Amino acid sequence: MVTPFDVPLAQLRARQSLKWRTYAPDVLPMFVAEMDVSAPEPVVRAVHDAMAAGDTGYDHGTRYAEAFAEFALERHGWDVPVARTRMVPDVMIGIVEVLGVLTHPGDAVVITTPVYPPFRAFLEHAGLHVVAVPLTEAGRLDLDALDAAFVDARAMLLCHPQNPTGTLHSAAELSALGELAARHHVRIVSDEIHAPLVLGDEPFVSATTAIPHAIALHSASKAFNLAGLKAAVAVPGAEAGADLARMPEIVGHGVSQIGVVAHVAAYREGGAWLDAALEQIRANVATVGRTLAERLPAARWTPPASTYFAWLDLRGCVPPDVDPARVLLQEGDLAVNSGPTFGTQGAGFVRMNLATSSDVLAEGLDRLVGTLG
Amino acid sequence: MVTPFDVPLAQLRARQSLKWRTYAPDVLPMFVAEMDVSAPEPVVRAVHDAMAAGDTGYDHGTRYAEAFAEFALERHGWDVPVARTRMVPDVMIGIVEVLGVLTHPGDAVVITTPVYPPFRAFLEHAGLHVVAVPLTEAGRLDLDALDAAFVDARAMLLCHPQNPTGTLHSAAELSALGELAARHHVRIVSDEIHAPLVLGDEPFVSATTAIPHAIALHSASKAFNLAGLKAAVAVPGAEAGADLARMPEIVGHGVSQIGVVAHVAAYREGGAWLDAALEQIRANVATVGRTLAERLPAARWTPPASTYFAWLDLRGCVPPDVDPARVLLQEGDLAVNSGPTFGTQGAGFVRMNLATSSDVLAEGLDRLVGTLG
Repeated sequence: MVTPFDVPLAQLRARQSLKWRTYAPDVLPMFVAEMDVSAPEPVVRAVHDAMAAGDTGYDHGTRYAEAFAEFALERHGWDVPVARTRMVPDVMIGIVEVLGVLTHPGDAVVITTPVYPPFRAFLEHAGLHVVAVPLTEAGRLDLDALDAAFVDARAMLLCHPQNPTGTLHSAAELSALGELAARHHVRIVSDEIHAPLVLGDEPFVSATTAIPHAIALHSASKAFNLAGLKAAVAVPGAEAGADLARMPEIVGHGVSQIGVVAHVAAYREGGAWLDAALEQIRANVATVGRTLAERLPAARWTPPASTYFAWLDLRGCVPPDVDPARVLLQEGDLAVNSGPTFGTQGAGFVRMNLATSSDVLAEGLDRLVGTLG
Repeated sequence: MVTPFDVPLAQLRARQSLKWRTYAPDVLPMFVAEMDVSAPEPVVRAVHDAMAAGDTGYDHGTRYAEAFAEFALERHGWDVPVARTRMVPDVMIGIVEVLGVLTHPGDAVVITTPVYPPFRAFLEHAGLHVVAVPLTEAGRLDLDALDAAFVDARAMLLCHPQNPTGTLHSAAELSALGELAARHHVRIVSDEIHAPLVLGDEPFVSATTAIPHAIALHSASKAFNLAGLKAAVAVPGAEAGADLARMPEIVGHGVSQIGVVAHVAAYREGGAWLDAALEQIRANVATVGRTLAERLPAARWTPPASTYFAWLDLRGCVPPDVDPARVLLQEGDLAVNSGPTFGTQGAGFVRMNLATSSDVLAEGLDRLVGTLG
């Protein structure tokens, strides 16, 4: 039986990673996107075998794309064009490099907020002008607002599934988005790193299958908790291969071969581990729903269709202009992500990481309810 | 007894890395900067321990810089200012990000050729104008030519030790360079990735100790053969800390925690392995010298003071306008790096990778001599 989340808290607290080193030991960290899991055994084995063989040189070839294509076909029914993919060091560096092909410095790039905070930081660092278009109240793409924003934009960086809301953009929404974008000569780049983390019946549909001119970024690092072993692949839609091919060869220099080894093992042999992880995340989502309904009814949320995040509307629990994340950290020793970092309409919200055991989740919810209830 | 190079050819040929996958199995690869070694045992163990603990999240803290500082103090007598260092994903990405702080798009950046080919490619991709100033015939910095080039330049990317020539720039040369640069308001960025690979009595002196306004990049990836596990650290000179601090926080997002784990183990526990590797490289350098003198006297070279490369002047062995690397590959089944890729004055030269066993080196030299002799 695969039990990814069977890691004692003492062992978690011994980790050297950002999640477990940022705060003092009395704080329970449920903020950054690390999972409280053991690594998939095939991944541990594959990395060790490569290390023991001294196979620690430069990456080469298409094995990552091949393994991802097998995974994508099985999980998403998606036929990935392996020969037209390109390796990149990680998803964010890949996004910047792909946008470097599709835009010029100073061009406007649209993002839909609330969204992963580094989107804005990386694009601005790349010399692009960021235009934020809020999602609707229901967390969906606002096509009318995007239509207006596309008038002056060159590209859009889509977050699909959307972090932090967990929204899975539907095939119909993506097609409509693609038509809008084509009409305005706006190119779509889609960060699809959370794609394997589908929690319900809604399917994941890559933007590249609904939008021929889109380019998507994929990686095993999020779903298999391999942020510490970076690698990612860029996948073009049917009409975007030539553009992706224009990305300079040197972009691939930054790819970690051992990262590739780890991700290939995850995609090829990590299926049972991923299914067990998803089962726990689904149970945790249900626990959050029950707990909030029973013990903190002033909190509001929409259970995520994907990702392992709860995007909690706590405006009913704190006075206006108070960041609940700050209250939770200072009064509850609970670290969650502050909503406004995801965009201005995140005020009063927090992002809580549910990729943990039932015990840690219960402790986290006790701290949440105990502080705000 | 540590014997890093005791890896059978059959095991090398089973590797998945660039060095062993680029050419057909009848070709002996002595081109790209991978070493034919087993990985240091402490590195294999540290990576396995972190993987087995599931400690695969985001990097955090200064442990890399601390381990590097201990190594630098012991090996180079260099007191690294740990608190003012910054982590970067790898050396080339770090160079581009540091230059992003020190320059504006379109600025001229000086490189000294022959030099590692990606220097030009990465700088041009970053929107910088590359000005190549040849080294002198003796492979030293040409201070008069640099003085002239600095008039219109904003920065210089130094390669120290110089790849492919193995030149160790002396403290006196670096100080003179720093004065020239300061007079012209030109900033020095120094790629010091080969620093641990000192072969003779000449010491390695970081550009940052001779030039207060310089910023250096260091990594364990070259000397410990960890190109597949990327990580690097940027170190400022006494007057460059504030500039390095201006590098955006997001640059650190690309750092691989498992890469950090591997490099920390290499710096802290890899000393015996490194010494054994250097012993073999020194022996190989001597073998090349004897072999060329006895069997290919038309070849000329200067034994490297650092790195594991032989920069061979084969102009006496081939007709003018013929690339000896192409002849060696096509007629000798020997893959070496083509000299002109390092700069125009590399015509007639090749770079040969000596980081291999005595047996493989002997086979490579047989193919070299048999083809050109």
